Amino acid sequence: MFVVMAVTATEAEINAVKSHILSEGMTPFDHQGAERVVIAVVGEVGPRKQHLMSKLSALAGVEAVTPISRPFKLTSREFHPEDTVVRVLGATIGDGSLTVMAGPCSVESREQLFETADFVAAHGATVLRGGAFKPRTSPYTFQGLGVEALRYLAEARERTGLPVITEVMEPNQVDIVQEYADILQVGTRNMQNYSLLTAVGRVARPVMLKRGYGATVEEWLMAAEYIVSSGNPNVILCERGIRTFETYTRNTMDLAAVPLLHHLTHLPVVVDPSHATGKRWLVKPMALAGVAAGADGVMVEVHPRPDEALSDGEQSLTLAEFESMMSAVGPIHGHVRDLHGDPVLAAQALEVGVGEKH
Amino acid sequence: MFVVMAVTATEAEINAVKSHILSEGMTPFDHQGAERVVIAVVGEVGPRKQHLMSKLSALAGVEAVTPISRPFKLTSREFHPEDTVVRVLGATIGDGSLTVMAGPCSVESREQLFETADFVAAHGATVLRGGAFKPRTSPYTFQGLGVEALRYLAEARERTGLPVITEVMEPNQVDIVQEYADILQVGTRNMQNYSLLTAVGRVARPVMLKRGYGATVEEWLMAAEYIVSSGNPNVILCERGIRTFETYTRNTMDLAAVPLLHHLTHLPVVVDPSHATGKRWLVKPMALAGVAAGADGVMVEVHPRPDEALSDGEQSLTLAEFESMMSAVGPIHGHVRDLHGDPVLAAQALEVGVGEKH
Amino acid sequence: MFVVMAVTATEAEINAVKSHILSEGMTPFDHQGAERVVIAVVGEVGPRKQHLMSKLSALAGVEAVTPISRPFKLTSREFHPEDTVVRVLGATIGDGSLTVMAGPCSVESREQLFETADFVAAHGATVLRGGAFKPRTSPYTFQGLGVEALRYLAEARERTGLPVITEVMEPNQVDIVQEYADILQVGTRNMQNYSLLTAVGRVARPVMLKRGYGATVEEWLMAAEYIVSSGNPNVILCERGIRTFETYTRNTMDLAAVPLLHHLTHLPVVVDPSHATGKRWLVKPMALAGVAAGADGVMVEVHPRPDEALSDGEQSLTLAEFESMMSAVGPIHGHVRDLHGDPVLAAQALEVGVGEKH
Amino acid sequence: MFVVMAVTATEAEINAVKSHILSEGMTPFDHQGAERVVIAVVGEVGPRKQHLMSKLSALAGVEAVTPISRPFKLTSREFHPEDTVVRVLGATIGDGSLTVMAGPCSVESREQLFETADFVAAHGATVLRGGAFKPRTSPYTFQGLGVEALRYLAEARERTGLPVITEVMEPNQVDIVQEYADILQVGTRNMQNYSLLTAVGRVARPVMLKRGYGATVEEWLMAAEYIVSSGNPNVILCERGIRTFETYTRNTMDLAAVPLLHHLTHLPVVVDPSHATGKRWLVKPMALAGVAAGADGVMVEVHPRPDEALSDGEQSLTLAEFESMMSAVGPIHGHVRDLHGDPVLAAQALEVGVGEKH
Repeated sequence: MFVVMAVTATEAEINAVKSHILSEGMTPFDHQGAERVVIAVVGEVGPRKQHLMSKLSALAGVEAVTPISRPFKLTSREFHPEDTVVRVLGATIGDGSLTVMAGPCSVESREQLFETADFVAAHGATVLRGGAFKPRTSPYTFQGLGVEALRYLAEARERTGLPVITEVMEPNQVDIVQEYADILQVGTRNMQNYSLLTAVGRVARPVMLKRGYGATVEEWLMAAEYIVSSGNPNVILCERGIRTFETYTRNTMDLAAVPLLHHLTHLPVVVDPSHATGKRWLVKPMALAGVAAGADGVMVEVHPRPDEALSDGEQSLTLAEFESMMSAVGPIHGHVRDLHGDPVLAAQALEVGVGEKH
Repeated sequence: MFVVMAVTATEAEINAVKSHILSEGMTPFDHQGAERVVIAVVGEVGPRKQHLMSKLSALAGVEAVTPISRPFKLTSREFHPEDTVVRVLGATIGDGSLTVMAGPCSVESREQLFETADFVAAHGATVLRGGAFKPRTSPYTFQGLGVEALRYLAEARERTGLPVITEVMEPNQVDIVQEYADILQVGTRNMQNYSLLTAVGRVARPVMLKRGYGATVEEWLMAAEYIVSSGNPNVILCERGIRTFETYTRNTMDLAAVPLLHHLTHLPVVVDPSHATGKRWLVKPMALAGVAAGADGVMVEVHPRPDEALSDGEQSLTLAEFESMMSAVGPIHGHVRDLHGDPVLAAQALEVGVGEKH
Repeated sequence: MFVVMAVTATEAEINAVKSHILSEGMTPFDHQGAERVVIAVVGEVGPRKQHLMSKLSALAGVEAVTPISRPFKLTSREFHPEDTVVRVLGATIGDGSLTVMAGPCSVESREQLFETADFVAAHGATVLRGGAFKPRTSPYTFQGLGVEALRYLAEARERTGLPVITEVMEPNQVDIVQEYADILQVGTRNMQNYSLLTAVGRVARPVMLKRGYGATVEEWLMAAEYIVSSGNPNVILCERGIRTFETYTRNTMDLAAVPLLHHLTHLPVVVDPSHATGKRWLVKPMALAGVAAGADGVMVEVHPRPDEALSDGEQSLTLAEFESMMSAVGPIHGHVRDLHGDPVLAAQALEVGVGEKH
Repeated sequence: MFVVMAVTATEAEINAVKSHILSEGMTPFDHQGAERVVIAVVGEVGPRKQHLMSKLSALAGVEAVTPISRPFKLTSREFHPEDTVVRVLGATIGDGSLTVMAGPCSVESREQLFETADFVAAHGATVLRGGAFKPRTSPYTFQGLGVEALRYLAEARERTGLPVITEVMEPNQVDIVQEYADILQVGTRNMQNYSLLTAVGRVARPVMLKRGYGATVEEWLMAAEYIVSSGNPNVILCERGIRTFETYTRNTMDLAAVPLLHHLTHLPVVVDPSHATGKRWLVKPMALAGVAAGADGVMVEVHPRPDEALSDGEQSLTLAEFESMMSAVGPIHGHVRDLHGDPVLAAQALEVGVGEKH
């Protein structure tokens, strides 16, 4: 449930409400909005719900106590109506600008990384991506250069000025990865690795959480809730395709998730057409589609010579293709930027049912 | 297999090739391209493939005989490299212009239809949609006004000048529907109703074939192949969402199918965000995304008072929402129109494999 | 809603209730159970629900009026608690005995059919299957022998004494198929071909309705509802696998649907491991699993020389494999026959929720 | 690729082959079969494949070098034709006996665990299950008693003599869990948590690997390959349902995976009908179906008072329901035990293609 404080509520009143919540065995999370403070009450309320609501309603400075049925709380628009804007080095994500995360699937060598980084930086990328620790389906394929790759990424940040994003695969890697990288990525296979979610929830770096390829939007937001409730509010969501019966494409890109998430949550949303399609020549049209649907950014794999790539070559853009995509995506973003309306108002439309499914 | 005739081949040579194909128990389909004629050989070749290829190669005027592994032939880019353009009344579909099919889910009354038709015509729709025979999951819900609705649709065409599209549900309805409507729609539940596909393949009206909600892109093209091989080349494909485990939206809109189809086939592709999402407030962003992905058009449900609609009210746009969508979608279309490149060249990229699926 | 009549209700009272229902614009369907009559009220009740319930409750002979939220009515256990038993020639389906439908995918010749029919009849099959009209994904592959095949099937019935089941693909074929066959099959691609469902709902032959490969259990029961509400109570359901992301097997066999259906509906349930798996060597274990889950029968494809089959050879059992399956499946059936408990009582368990989905 | 050694090969010859493999930068894994040794060569062979095959073929004692296209090696039947039998305390899994893993979803208290453990032990369970660390979709629900639960489980083992299985969620928990538990479980959300797979691959306890709810059979075997190639050959696979569009059940139980796995791999296969269905009353029929399909065992959740359970109550069997399931499942197992044939021979059938998918 949420406790909506009055505009005139004092700090002492706010603290008294939080103390009461703690005394009931629940945890308070407060959000200072433009006008007023909202306090989320999290924990298992169960049968004490009515009791708790009436107790809280009676406290000084409380304007309303509203139950919410959604299982995600801190990541919901109801709790935090304004968009979350993630700021890292010079980049801002979620403020209406277009974020472009680009770079190689795997960092394969210093030269390959620098060649790619210099190019994408010169052509409009705002974040540099590159895999150091690689989650691979087979134990017998290239697993990434590890710490060596992290060092190259840090050097590439110095050259280009771009913040660096890379994947972290287990709690024990969090310390070393955050030492070198600016944004930590949790991959699709680890979306419900709760130990990892909690670990990245305790660091001071933003986290990009990719959707599990078999996960619903609700489960994805619950996974984000693990990170935010552990203390890290700077979470970016990344749609990268889900599993379906269609086999022409590697996955099925669920673009309706983009406007849906903008209604359900305040967190920024990025799309990854490289993993979603698995085919280089589908990346550009799907990047355009993602931006048109309202995504805050795109993440794409770029390689100077995709045919020689140690991983994901068939879905990596060449340098020329990246340039071509960039020249197309900018104007689309400029056009839709103000189109998607007020997400707070739109959120009120959410309760419309589904009806006959066919 | 395809027989590619020489640029200099005479009509007599072309006819001789076709006669030979018939004499082998197969059926020839010829396509007159810009420069030369290509003849598709369809039927079950089986073990006689090598024999047939060498026989045909030896005929006068034949430049090459190429085997193709795709199961769809007449609908493939290889057979027919240029885009198919469907022309009906004043509308053209697939020529680079933006097609907008709009109207009520069901025709409920003369007044409801005319109010909607006048509005969408005045705000840029190019085709008027409206259901007369409705396929409903339950036998106990509104099944459409039938022939009465067809008459209203024909009247609405007179008022607005827009061609009319409506669904035909069984072979026996084809005659009456084509008497009133300009484009026949085959719905998602009937995508593999082969009797119906063959029946609409024999009429002189264009057909819009919706994707089966459980069908792959390949099966969809095979269904289109039934129509084209029955004699009707004017087929429009409509992506309307597929079944997945995600439950927030009615279906999952597979937008990657749009650029994929532009590579695989010469037929125009339209997207239907109303059925794909099932939620009115997701229609506009997904219409934008579809157009950005390269769709030749969008189909949307519009109702003056969605809350009173007899079917699909929760996904129908109001008149004002339709106007808002139209003002947004035009500029996006103007921008991407020339972006998606040369589909014939792009088709060569098709054979790239899929690699590790995750 | 259902009107439960008192045990002592007279025929006049029952008729008065039905008349009242008609006068309200709804349709009554009555079911004479062991003790009492239940009348289902079907049609769009909408806002008049409370009014209608109180009116009906007040009529003489009415014990109770119960609303039901399920969209399927006549096919539900609530309306018809006892199992439906389908009787056709000497076969009974749904009475606790084991139904085995076996035969070739397609009838290819008189000899092929008779060789198969004689063998399966001698080894325990209770129904002979064979395709005459074949729904094929490609228009260029073998489409069945049509009426010629129907004649052979009728001859095979004379030889073996087994009732014959074959697929009907469109309303126009219903007359000719029912002339020769004993059970009409509606295939997976036509599960929501409502014209066909209505047409087979009007004949005197039992109908086997295969599940659409992309359809939910609820939609499947709604499709059965079309047949039953058109006047044909003898419907058999056949689970044949659904579409998923798994690609090793042709489809994913949803065996939980078997006990689920026994709870939701009174109609018999058969499983088809041939289409569900697409691999001959998986048919026997999945037939055993289906029977163990409580299926009323199995349907399998059998061919004397599968490698020469014109369709579905890779999933057809050889004669020897059929014999092997039969010797295994009988004892399993004998063991589980009395295990699955009282479906009427079990139906009460249905309302248990689903909880956290993972 | 696999190096098949001659029956007469000496240990020195075997070692020479392994040394050569190492010198080429690959890793040898040898399996001592009944008659001969087979050595798997793992690593990225790439373009050196032909070179390597001819080199190895020329070594003394080598009978044949066979390429294999499957991505899983050590877990494949080709490498290890005999069934793997896992032995732990008095239990054996995979030897043809019926394994029954039963116990509460979560260990909630000493009393709850002991009451359940005593009952299931007395009624035929062979392994005791109970969750100590619980992966929960929401951060706000019961997360398990942790180490306290591990202690209770160890006590319950003393009381009942049954080996204990419990889930481990992260590499850091492996040490403490293996101190108390006899079998480590990797849950569905962690199936591709490669750090965890590698960590459990290094301990001396058997590991049960649940299928990821969005994972294909091939990916599942690749995940098992991580464990086995890290040094732990005692892996048990557990089918627990996959994500599909069907919503009546929590997941769709893919029972065809059972015979499929018996062909592809030598590892034992257990089914979990509790998580697969999410409904208590579907557990028994699906347990029967799983055993009939050839599963080596079943895992079920049991709770003395499911309505009071802190997790998964709606899918937990009562004590009486467990007893009922046990009395039914034994005879089915007795019947099918010898039915499923010789998996080594059957494996040869594997290469049959899939054909037209519908």
